[in-house]
Amino acid sequence: MARFTVTYRLRATSREEALARAEGIALEQTVEIPRDVVPAGYVADEILGRVEDIDPLAEGVWQATISYSPDSAGEEYTQFLNVVFGNSSIQQGIRVTAVNPGPEMTARFPGPRFGIAGLRALCGRTTGGMIAPVLKPMGLAPADFARLAAGCVHGGADIVKEDHGLASQPTARFRARVEAVCAAMAKARAETGRRTLYFPNLSGRPDEIERNLRFLKEAGADGVLVMPGLFGFGLVHRIAMDANLNLPVMTHPSFLGPYVLAPDTGVDHGVLFGTLQRLAGSDISVFPNVGGRFGFTAAECLQIADACRMPDGPGLPMLPSPGGGMNVARAAEMQAMYGQDVVYLLGGSLLKDPARIDEAVSAMRRALDRGTIGRPHGNA
Amino acid sequence: MARFTVTYRLRATSREEALARAEGIALEQTVEIPRDVVPAGYVADEILGRVEDIDPLAEGVWQATISYSPDSAGEEYTQFLNVVFGNSSIQQGIRVTAVNPGPEMTARFPGPRFGIAGLRALCGRTTGGMIAPVLKPMGLAPADFARLAAGCVHGGADIVKEDHGLASQPTARFRARVEAVCAAMAKARAETGRRTLYFPNLSGRPDEIERNLRFLKEAGADGVLVMPGLFGFGLVHRIAMDANLNLPVMTHPSFLGPYVLAPDTGVDHGVLFGTLQRLAGSDISVFPNVGGRFGFTAAECLQIADACRMPDGPGLPMLPSPGGGMNVARAAEMQAMYGQDVVYLLGGSLLKDPARIDEAVSAMRRALDRGTIGRPHGNA
Repeated sequence: MARFTVTYRLRATSREEALARAEGIALEQTVEIPRDVVPAGYVADEILGRVEDIDPLAEGVWQATISYSPDSAGEEYTQFLNVVFGNSSIQQGIRVTAVNPGPEMTARFPGPRFGIAGLRALCGRTTGGMIAPVLKPMGLAPADFARLAAGCVHGGADIVKEDHGLASQPTARFRARVEAVCAAMAKARAETGRRTLYFPNLSGRPDEIERNLRFLKEAGADGVLVMPGLFGFGLVHRIAMDANLNLPVMTHPSFLGPYVLAPDTGVDHGVLFGTLQRLAGSDISVFPNVGGRFGFTAAECLQIADACRMPDGPGLPMLPSPGGGMNVARAAEMQAMYGQDVVYLLGGSLLKDPARIDEAVSAMRRALDRGTIGRPHGNA
Repeated sequence: MARFTVTYRLRATSREEALARAEGIALEQTVEIPRDVVPAGYVADEILGRVEDIDPLAEGVWQATISYSPDSAGEEYTQFLNVVFGNSSIQQGIRVTAVNPGPEMTARFPGPRFGIAGLRALCGRTTGGMIAPVLKPMGLAPADFARLAAGCVHGGADIVKEDHGLASQPTARFRARVEAVCAAMAKARAETGRRTLYFPNLSGRPDEIERNLRFLKEAGADGVLVMPGLFGFGLVHRIAMDANLNLPVMTHPSFLGPYVLAPDTGVDHGVLFGTLQRLAGSDISVFPNVGGRFGFTAAECLQIADACRMPDGPGLPMLPSPGGGMNVARAAEMQAMYGQDVVYLLGGSLLKDPARIDEAVSAMRRALDRGTIGRPHGNA
């Protein structure tokens, strides 16, 4: 059966030490017992991780590629991540720099249900960057969010996304809020002929999640925002695999920062916010944009965008969604950087005058459309 | 309503910069919009985070304590963590060093259902360190795990814990494995009169978790192992709150390493593996032991143990459970370090001769009991 591979960057002072560390990871991530007590046969031959490659990267830095059996992961995305980086995440000087699922794991985790083309079809924006204003702040009432959402439809938003901080606070319980926004957006869509999509932020205890997913689908939501750092990546996979639910997923990076921030541990930006989100089945990956209030570099943002959109998989290409610090003045710069297949989150800059959020959204639409004229279709 | 507080360690070159960063966190973690557009009244007065304290710690390092409204978190543990460190986790130079839930959040998140006294009552070990051998490696069949588990009961184990890598692999599906181990342990308990507990590793897609919890309870499991880094801390809270299920929870650190490894970001060891696990409702917190194959220091391990067992809460004191590198030769050293209220994981060292796992467990029991003679009851 086709094994999947994970590439780790390791601190080690020699090839021997790098190989020993890699063999330690191969044990740790699978059997978790010393090599001399691994049962011979199937466990040693198939289940045990296998060091496929060791290469020097720089002084004291090595790269190891380890292959794992699909049998070690089974059919659960959670267990797949457990094999990729469960216990090794706790050891110093190990960073995941690539994950290649191979054909067998790609069959089990086929990726986004909608992808870029599917999202464009749903919202009717065939070319150009997409605009996703964010409903916030927490503490408002459902009627407030409903008014903001209607304004966003009138302004020409492609997706109305909820702030990841809207859960089920006493001022706006999850169900009341979703119902109010759905009703306001249906009315605004009928008035404008637009197809603006609504992605509420999934909220609830684990035993409420299934009911809440059915509820938001029946209420008329068009997709769902999920925080895999808090709810688990398995939830993204579970939603993406559900043909009856048939909802696109936007993933939010909340609580995931420590995985990328320290260069010597964790997971590379493109792997965490690109490859692993895409393989889990996210259609849109939100990440902190360069130049905003987070510290990602342009190179890190482009690594994410590339991993989201690589034409050769895994699964359908998905939409990168840079958030933070986007405004009309940066539209041309952002388009030059990201190209067309991108969803721009618009947050605080829209809320200076909530009653005129429609004008703020349409100003951003015009800024993006100006930048698109004369540009070739596709990514920059 | 009593606010909860979070203390952050910040990089900043002056008090002014530290205050500005703290005010940025207070905005980021709640309203996520610029200060000048925060609606006056309830949102500004109650929902917005409030900087309560700024203190210098060292050259270029400051400590800020920020209070948050219980209304910002609602009743969901996931949203509580989202307020504690959701987006701020993605900013460089911010580390959570303390979380004080205060009376209101402690009422919503009352902590462990069983705690130290409850676990001791369940397994009948009134004094001394507790022993928890681990069923592994993945790739074995249910009958193999059943035999190992029976040996552990005969050897005098307090808890038989499954390896966190046992999910629902083809060689040992979750339900078949749990049933086989439950049956073998029931027989061994009847033969020995012991009360050894069984904690299977919770597995499943999010839409299977509820069924799997009911299944393992009905099959006769005595508790459950959960990986909050992969399934979310909300799942721990959901299980701990369930009076019908009435199962103790052991939490495993898989995938959580990056939160603690980089000193300049993430969450302090005691907060992540102590305070936050305890508040979520874990009864036993597994963490990598000093001197094993992970790099935690003795001070970091004791910070965790202290946070787990502090008599003044939040909630009942819980059991720290150091894993990795424990063996008979280290028993005296470990007892001197951790005292009596501790669960020792025993892994690879038991499996040198699987047919004699009972002897290996009882050798560890004797080593711990020798160390206990003459020592006062309680923590070292």
